[in-house]
Amino acid sequence: MIDDPSRPIGVFDSGVGGLTVLKALRTRLPDEDFVYLGDTARLPYGTKSPASVVRYAEQATRRLLAEDVKLLVVACNTASAVALEALSRAMAPLPVVGVVEPGALAATSARPEGSHLVLATEATVRLGAYRKAIAALDPAARVRELACELLVALAEEGWTGGEIAESIVRRYLDTDASHPDSVILGCTHFPLLVDAIRACLDPGVSVVDSAVTTAKVVADTLDRQNLCRDNGTGQLRLLATDGAKRFARVGGRFLGAALTAADVELVDI
Amino acid sequence: MIDDPSRPIGVFDSGVGGLTVLKALRTRLPDEDFVYLGDTARLPYGTKSPASVVRYAEQATRRLLAEDVKLLVVACNTASAVALEALSRAMAPLPVVGVVEPGALAATSARPEGSHLVLATEATVRLGAYRKAIAALDPAARVRELACELLVALAEEGWTGGEIAESIVRRYLDTDASHPDSVILGCTHFPLLVDAIRACLDPGVSVVDSAVTTAKVVADTLDRQNLCRDNGTGQLRLLATDGAKRFARVGGRFLGAALTAADVELVDI
Repeated sequence: MIDDPSRPIGVFDSGVGGLTVLKALRTRLPDEDFVYLGDTARLPYGTKSPASVVRYAEQATRRLLAEDVKLLVVACNTASAVALEALSRAMAPLPVVGVVEPGALAATSARPEGSHLVLATEATVRLGAYRKAIAALDPAARVRELACELLVALAEEGWTGGEIAESIVRRYLDTDASHPDSVILGCTHFPLLVDAIRACLDPGVSVVDSAVTTAKVVADTLDRQNLCRDNGTGQLRLLATDGAKRFARVGGRFLGAALTAADVELVDI
Repeated sequence: MIDDPSRPIGVFDSGVGGLTVLKALRTRLPDEDFVYLGDTARLPYGTKSPASVVRYAEQATRRLLAEDVKLLVVACNTASAVALEALSRAMAPLPVVGVVEPGALAATSARPEGSHLVLATEATVRLGAYRKAIAALDPAARVRELACELLVALAEEGWTGGEIAESIVRRYLDTDASHPDSVILGCTHFPLLVDAIRACLDPGVSVVDSAVTTAKVVADTLDRQNLCRDNGTGQLRLLATDGAKRFARVGGRFLGAALTAADVELVDI
């Protein structure tokens, strides 16, 4: 049934990064069931053409619809930037939530007419997704987007704290002279580095974790549509299109829970 | 004509990494013309299935055969490990040179019955390509393969010297207790980091740069087959399957020559 709240929430990313969003979702909505799909066979999406990303994301959405999901979270910045409209059509009338809008909304609400620094991948910076989303919400806001590619590798390697992480973050921040009011973690990998990032910022700077803000928007959306579940046990299924072993090893850190390859179902989409 | 030495040498990689091999080739063989093909639309190969890598590499080889190349250099560790036999069939009777064998040969010649540490990507370590190649050449040799994924991102970001690069290299090397006689740079990105790597090793340790050793094997192969050119002007064409701008920006550092997007021809393969 389309209005049955016991159905799972679908979460989709090109790889393991979206597991930080899943972690925030499970914390915020412990009664809900989740099905996560990581399209690891075709990552990274950031270097693919928009037409390819739309096609891949539509295939992933069809796979999650087959799992009877009640809401889709696009936990991938590239897909959120280029495929959200197509996925909303594919999911209609079911709701779709991306990661860009919630981050932009949280930043502009916390610091109206403020100066925002977006830390992201090269691909997200090139798409200008946060810049556009913030400008739409707060035309007086100033936005700078900074590509921090090494932070992705750092998060995947698990070297998220200590001197190496902080010196890399500091070197990136040193290239920015904008004195931001808020820093937006515009890549799903970066919540793992939040402590190292905070350590390099003035205490007054807000740090916006898109995973947390996306979880809030999902909770509000379910609430509005009477789709909240309040008596569940929080079941989780993890699907990936390739590399179950690596998905488990790296993904466990992102999800904040130990995983083995047996926890990951390989699927073709 | 199949024995015309004026034909170009084809060099193939999944991305920009092979440009370090191209740089070594151009230094060693300044009279030769080169056509380089980076399959940037489908990188990374390391996470793809062997069947997919073979298919992609065969497509790239066909594209280079259409450029009338006289020899093919597979400047990609993953393709060298899984597709060399298929590519040799596709190129026959023209010669094919990969990057794994030359590195293994140089290391075992320099340090017979020695202890070798291979720095590589996760994918190359998983394939065990250097371990197998060294065992075939010198059964008494000891080999340890160490995945150093962050070094790839470091090279692409251009942060190849200084404190950050050295502390990352040192952290990887600290996990190894094998006291190697030689360290093999088993990833085409790592020659950019050779100074940082040397700075973290005892002075007696040999460092084997696969790019340089591959260039030597190519020169010897051309010589044996009377395919050397000695009166050329060293023309270069760069082909990529996606992202000419990034290819030029990142690739320029790998090639050691300033590039612009206009220097890169986008091709479908």
